[in-house]
This record gives sequence, structure tokens and C-alpha cells, in this order.
Amino acid sequence: VSELSLADIVARLGGELAGDPAQRIDGIGPLDSAGPSTLSFIVSARYREQLAATAAGCVIAPPALRDEAAARGAVIVTADPYLYFARFTQWWAQRTRPAAVPGIHSSAVVDAASTVHPGATVSAMACIEAGAVISDGAVIGAQSYIGRNARIGAYTRLAPRVVVYDHCVLGERCIVHSGAVIGADGFGFAPAGGQWEKIEQLGAVRIGHDVEIGANTCIDRGALDDTVIEDGVKLDNQIQIGHNVHVGAHTAMAGCAGVAGSAKIGRHCMIGGSAMILGHLELADGVQVSTGTAVTRSILKPGLYSGLFPFDDNANWEKNAATLRQLYRLRERIRALEKKIS
Amino acid sequence: VSELSLADIVARLGGELAGDPAQRIDGIGPLDSAGPSTLSFIVSARYREQLAATAAGCVIAPPALRDEAAARGAVIVTADPYLYFARFTQWWAQRTRPAAVPGIHSSAVVDAASTVHPGATVSAMACIEAGAVISDGAVIGAQSYIGRNARIGAYTRLAPRVVVYDHCVLGERCIVHSGAVIGADGFGFAPAGGQWEKIEQLGAVRIGHDVEIGANTCIDRGALDDTVIEDGVKLDNQIQIGHNVHVGAHTAMAGCAGVAGSAKIGRHCMIGGSAMILGHLELADGVQVSTGTAVTRSILKPGLYSGLFPFDDNANWEKNAATLRQLYRLRERIRALEKKIS
Amino acid sequence: VSELSLADIVARLGGELAGDPAQRIDGIGPLDSAGPSTLSFIVSARYREQLAATAAGCVIAPPALRDEAAARGAVIVTADPYLYFARFTQWWAQRTRPAAVPGIHSSAVVDAASTVHPGATVSAMACIEAGAVISDGAVIGAQSYIGRNARIGAYTRLAPRVVVYDHCVLGERCIVHSGAVIGADGFGFAPAGGQWEKIEQLGAVRIGHDVEIGANTCIDRGALDDTVIEDGVKLDNQIQIGHNVHVGAHTAMAGCAGVAGSAKIGRHCMIGGSAMILGHLELADGVQVSTGTAVTRSILKPGLYSGLFPFDDNANWEKNAATLRQLYRLRERIRALEKKIS
Repeated sequence: VSELSLADIVARLGGELAGDPAQRIDGIGPLDSAGPSTLSFIVSARYREQLAATAAGCVIAPPALRDEAAARGAVIVTADPYLYFARFTQWWAQRTRPAAVPGIHSSAVVDAASTVHPGATVSAMACIEAGAVISDGAVIGAQSYIGRNARIGAYTRLAPRVVVYDHCVLGERCIVHSGAVIGADGFGFAPAGGQWEKIEQLGAVRIGHDVEIGANTCIDRGALDDTVIEDGVKLDNQIQIGHNVHVGAHTAMAGCAGVAGSAKIGRHCMIGGSAMILGHLELADGVQVSTGTAVTRSILKPGLYSGLFPFDDNANWEKNAATLRQLYRLRERIRALEKKIS
Repeated sequence: VSELSLADIVARLGGELAGDPAQRIDGIGPLDSAGPSTLSFIVSARYREQLAATAAGCVIAPPALRDEAAARGAVIVTADPYLYFARFTQWWAQRTRPAAVPGIHSSAVVDAASTVHPGATVSAMACIEAGAVISDGAVIGAQSYIGRNARIGAYTRLAPRVVVYDHCVLGERCIVHSGAVIGADGFGFAPAGGQWEKIEQLGAVRIGHDVEIGANTCIDRGALDDTVIEDGVKLDNQIQIGHNVHVGAHTAMAGCAGVAGSAKIGRHCMIGGSAMILGHLELADGVQVSTGTAVTRSILKPGLYSGLFPFDDNANWEKNAATLRQLYRLRERIRALEKKIS
Repeated sequence: VSELSLADIVARLGGELAGDPAQRIDGIGPLDSAGPSTLSFIVSARYREQLAATAAGCVIAPPALRDEAAARGAVIVTADPYLYFARFTQWWAQRTRPAAVPGIHSSAVVDAASTVHPGATVSAMACIEAGAVISDGAVIGAQSYIGRNARIGAYTRLAPRVVVYDHCVLGERCIVHSGAVIGADGFGFAPAGGQWEKIEQLGAVRIGHDVEIGANTCIDRGALDDTVIEDGVKLDNQIQIGHNVHVGAHTAMAGCAGVAGSAKIGRHCMIGGSAMILGHLELADGVQVSTGTAVTRSILKPGLYSGLFPFDDNANWEKNAATLRQLYRLRERIRALEKKIS
């Protein structure tokens, strides 16, 4: 078990400690399940009751809750407890997880014409093709595949079983989870007498720094130019990014979202789970799209956009859905009534 | 070809045979394509016409259809023909598929600090990390990955190319299909001045007994506590389960469903394909959600819930969708009419 | 860098050249980013302005735009520039990508009881089980898995990390992208006293010729009969095809679409992204389904069908969604008004 004193924590992460600096904690947890050696956190007064009841050894709290938190035990006061918590988890993970050991596992298949930095880790049964470049501190997970001339930036970590097709580029400090596929062919075909003629996808995928890509997420290569994911983008699991999409910096997308070809999504956007962005659209910086919403035209103004059928018990839904199929006729009947009465 | 007599079948699976016990069958099939050596089944009188026309050597039928079934040939009468059919397929599969051979394939990479039971099978190019435990009768498919300290219960079968991240636990007799990813990081970030600061996901995934997990389905590890899948849960393909979700026993979810973080789904629920459950919600035991429905608030009463835009030919849909965007104004016009008239 | 003269191009692909046959091009690109050694294309007068402004060395254009295109430089005139472009990309890819080298990589695990044609390529760490057949010119990507008795047709190419379960059959000249899973178990269970009894899936998957299957797409094996994908079908990424589905020839489906069990989709259909087809339905030849539409009953007439909640800014959506939950009561109020007035 890893242990830290409260003094260690504020020395590393800042904040103002009210309590015994020598007190030790051996983990972090939510208020309701925390024990006397657990560090916990509270972000707002909404969780006041849980704060009063928690057995946590120490609580990270905002200035406004300092006194309440201190009344029950040790407290670290900081302007943004959630951010403090995030940084604590990073430090904790770094202390408790085994570090990757640089070097190439004997079972990996690494082409002699590739470049693997001595500070990089290539795990068991990974495959590195000719011309690929694996930078310092990068970790290629077990059974992952790096195609010809692909480049993996410094300190980027690929979980087991990630595929990066040829010529695709990942920046530094990215994290890619298992099953992600970067650079498969975009979906491009020309109709030819009732059949489909393949358009070979000649572009690649370019991914910036500090990007996280979730499990089983796909980012297709471009048809002619590249698909681009800018710095700091966070993609959850099972997302589909079509060819030639451009995702602006620090945009986040939740699970199962889909973006069709050539859409251009701005910076600092938030796309909800299972939302769909149709092809060739543009979303301005700062656009937020609700879960399950299909965006069918460009959005040029920041703000929150939604389009989800409200669910109901099935009987009500059926009656409303049936009426909905006649909706424009209802409108006509209202018009007719209005004419008669006026 | 594997063959069974009707006597063999009722000896093993029960039911009352009307027909020649020595009659042999060499496969099972639907009524309409069955031949004289095929076993088939009928669940209700709705398929009466197909029963009359079938060439099946023997039909599994409920008591109510005994005479009709017997009029055309051999019949096995049982209270629940569909369940009988299910159990027959299990027996048939067991007889016709080669059994896994216990042992570790020479191409697998197995850490010396892991524990593989002598009765377990570790297939070609699988990777087992330090501290992992593979129990008796478990089968680790080719190219699968079992992370540090993960545990695979007895008789659990992983298809080729499954990933189980570190510290995740699967119970006994589970089935996991190819491409499934168990224990990737949940999607957790703290906003930090327009960027996202990663919250390391320090929990894991705990899966009960007799759980089936479909191809390319993802179950994320918890942020602090674990994500939990209870006994007997059945998950179809391409499902996304967010961090800290809790799925109650014997709940089934169809393909492409998504469950956002910290949702708590009851026991014996049925979630339709592509349905979405938003985060931090609770679904009572026995809730059923229709295909494509987005559940945006907790459901505390069992029953069927729906919320799907009724599809139509495109021209009608366009007119209705256009009206829908003005719906609340229609309501106001109705109010105005009601006032004038009263 | 690969280079071609305009004479080379028309010699190979046809079309009528207006310009210097010796002029060389070294790539293909869109009008707006093309340079003097780039081949570009224009499909219709809609892009007339980009045509006038392009720096492309040569433009593929339809007869109607011949003069405009010729006014700015070399032009290849052809009836269908998009198809010409598609064929050019194929030729270009063939010229610039390294050809697969026939043979079995030393790290592959190939069962002695399988059949690998001498003209086939089995890449690093692929796994070929007993009874499998890999035909002439087929390419099995790195870390791919071919199950017992599966058959891969001539010139079919599997990207790295594709899984084909036992007994599944792919035709000739197919392309399958990374993470695709062909032949996992369909989702079949019989209810048994509040629990689920597995129905073993005894069918397989049969895929025709010239089929393309996207990254992380799943096609489940049939319960008793096979799941069937006919010739020329194109499936994008992250698609889910349930057991016993039948997809007619030359049908195309965009990303994240889902087809539930036993649905029968006609030939030449187009299914939009994230669309869902419910189980046991039939879609006629030539049916088109819009993005995100859930098809809940059979469609027997070709045409375009839609059913998508129109998105809006969140405030408007909320008001309309609230009214929608009372829609059938609005209809009743209109009826009441109509009665009073008539």
C-alpha cells in the first residue's frame, strides 16, 4: 500500500492545509465510502450532507466550505477542488502503477527499417512496420500495430491492441485505449452502374498533443487530405470519426458519438454521447451538442443544441407518436379554425 | 456428422417422446428448412402452418400442439419448447465443437508472476501479465490480453482478441467475444482553463458469474470505486458501459446500447438496441427500454418506456419535423382559440 | 515520389485529353489545395468558382465543363469525373503502396491442418486454425485470427487485427478493416425463470465477393442458418449486423448503423449513419434510410425514409419537447374546438 502524509500532498499539489501535517492517507475515495485514511473531496455545498457524514481522513474543499469541512477533521482548501482531485489522481497513479520499462520485448516484431527510441517501450507481440518512428518515452502496448511510416510522439501511451495504420501521426503525451483504430479507410465510393467503385483513401490521420482516444474508437484516414485532431481533444469510447473531419483543440466527445466525413468541429466544443454530426457541416468554437442529438446543418453560434425525442411510458409515447405522424395536418386544422373564428 | 437418436435426446433433456425412439437426427433447424433428419421446434400456434408443412424428422412442441405435431411425425412434448431448444443447442455445440485443450500455447507470453491453473487453456499469442490469475477450465483466446492482477474465473471463455485491463475480475462461466475491452479508462476530466486535466481512473471492473459480453463491447473501469456487472447479465455487441455503472443481475442489453457514467440499472431489465441511459440515473428492477430510446431521468417503476421518432416517407417526415419545430406555438394558438370560443 | 504523364493516365483510364500529353503529375488533390503537378477533378458546375481559381496541373471534367476547364490549363474530359477519379485513386494506390509479399511470416501461428495458398500472405503474428483455407492472393493482416474451417477468398485483404470466427466464409476481393469481428455469437437467449439460457449459435456468416467491411464492425453468426452478406455490399465502421440478417447485393451502410436479427435488407439499399433496422423486418430493393432513423416496420416500396428529431437551440427544443409529451391531448382540444364551431 502506498501512503502519503498531508504534508507531502500540499508540498506537491499546493492548497492550504488545516489539520495535522503528519496524518497519513492511503487512498482517495468518494465522501460516502471514505474511511479515516482516505482523502476525499467536495466541489460544492450541494454535497454538504455527505460532507457532514463522511469518515474521510481529509477532505479537499473550496474556501466557502472551509469551516464546515474543518469542523469534522483535516481539510485542504483550494479554489478548485475537482481540479486538485484530478491532479492528485495523476500523482497517485504515477506512484502506484509500475513504470513502463524501456526496450523492445523479445516477442515483438519490429521492422529493421523502423526507428524505436531507446527510451521507448515496445511491449509483447507488438508489430512495428518499416519507416515507423517511436519516440522517447512512448509506450506501445502489447499486440498493438504501428503501420509503415507512422509516427508516435514522445511519451504517448498506447494500450494493448491499438492499431495505427500507415502514415498516421500521433503527437506527444497522447493516450490511446485498446481496440482503437486510427487510419482505416474512409468510406468513399463512386456509384458505377448500380455498383460501388472504391475511392482509395490517400490521406492519413494527424493527431496533436495531449489527445486521449477511447477504447474501440475509430478515426478514418482522409480521402486526399488528412483527417485532423488538434491538441488536447478527448474522445471517449466507440466513437466514429469519418474521413477528412477536423476536430478543433480541446473539444471533448462522449461515447458512441459519430462525425461524418469532412465535418469541421470547432475548438472547445462538447459533443454528447451518441450524438451525430452530419458530413460537410461546420460547428463554431464552443458549441455544445446534447446526448443523442443529430446535427443536420452547420451551427455558427456557440451555445447548447438539442434534439431528442422525450421518452415516456410506452402507452403515452405511442399516442403521441401516432399524433406526430399527422402533425402538419393538425396545424392546418388550427389554421382553419382561426379563419372561421376571426 | 454428429448423430443422436430421439431416445438419446429425451434421456438427456427430458420431455415426452411420441415417435420412434431409434429415429436419428443429425442437426437442428427452423421448420421451413428442416429435413427428415432435422430436429425442429414450434413455440406457439402462430406457426401452425409451418408446422403442417415442415419436413422435420422431429418437432419439439408444447402440450397444446401435441396432436397437430404428432399428426405429421415424431414429436417431443415439453412445457417450454424454446428453452428445450436452447438446451439442445448447448448440448449439440458441446458434442460437435472441439474441446479446448488445457495448457499454455508455446507462442503465448505469460509472466512468471502470474498463476495459470493446469486445467486452463491459454491460446496462441495470448499475453498474461504479472499477478493475473487464470482459473480451472478457463479459456483465454488467441491474441487476448490479461492485465496485471486481473482474475478470470473458472470455465470462463474469452474469444480471440479480448482485452482485460489490470485488476479487473471476471466470475465463472462467463463468455466474452472478440474485440471486447474490459477496464479501459472511464471518461473523466476536470476542466482547467479551457483544457482538460485527466482524472486517472483508479477503480476497476467487477463482473459476476454467467455473464456474456458481445463483440467490441466496452466496459470502463471506475474512477474511484469499481464498475459492477452482476451475475447473469447479457450484453450484446458494440455496447458502451461507462465508469461506475452498476448493472443488476440478469439484465439484458441489445447491440449498440450505451450507459453513461454512474448509472444504476436494476435487475431483470431489458434495454433495447441503441438505447442510451444517461449518467447518474437509476432504473428500477424490471424496467424495459425500447430500441433507440434515450433515458434522461430515473425510472422508478417497472414497465416499458419508449421515445423514438416515428419514421415516415421523407416528404411526410419533413412536413411534420418542420411543424414540430413550432409545436409550442401551436399550443399557444389552440389556447387563444379556446379563449375566444368559451 | 511517383509520377505519371497525362498521356499515361488517358492510356490507362480513357477520357479525352486537352493539353500537353507530356505534362507530369505527382499526386491527386481537391481543387482548392491542388498545385501545378496535381491532378484534380470537378463533378458539376456547382464548383465552377473553385475551378476558375485552382492551380491544379490538370482537371478531370465532364463534357459540359470542358471549355471552362480548358481555359485554365490541361483537362481530361470524361462522362463521369467522379468515377474516373475513383479509378485513378485505385491505380495510384497500387503504384505507390508496397505490394504484399506472398508467404507466411515466421511469427504467424498456422495450424498444420489449414491450407494456405502459396500466393497468399500471412502477416506477422496472425493465427490460422485447423481446416481454414486462405486462397491465392489473399492477405491476412498482422495479428489477425482465422478460425477453424473458415475460408478467405482469393485477393481478399484483411487489415491487421481482424477476427473471423470458425466456419465463416469470405468471397473474393473483399477488404476488411482492423477490429472487424465476423462470426461472433448472435444474441440469443431463452428466458428461464428470470434468468437467460444461452442458445448456442450454430450457423455461420457467408460473405460474397467485393464486400468491404469497416473498422470495428461486427457481423454475428446465425443461430441455425447463416447470416448472409451478398456481393458488393459496403459497410462502414462500427456497424452491428445481428444474426441471420440478409443484406442484398450492392447495399451500402454508413457508420454506426445497426441491423437487428433476421432483418432482410434488399439490394441497392442505402442505410444512413446510426440508422437502426429492427429485427425480422424486410426492406425492399432500393430503399434509402436517413441518418439516425429507426426503421420499426417493413418497407416494401423503394424511396427515402426518415425519422429524426429536428435539433434546435436547447431552449426551443425544451419547449417543443414538453409540448410533444402532451401532443395527443392537443389533438383532442382541436377536435373539441372543431365540434363547438361547426
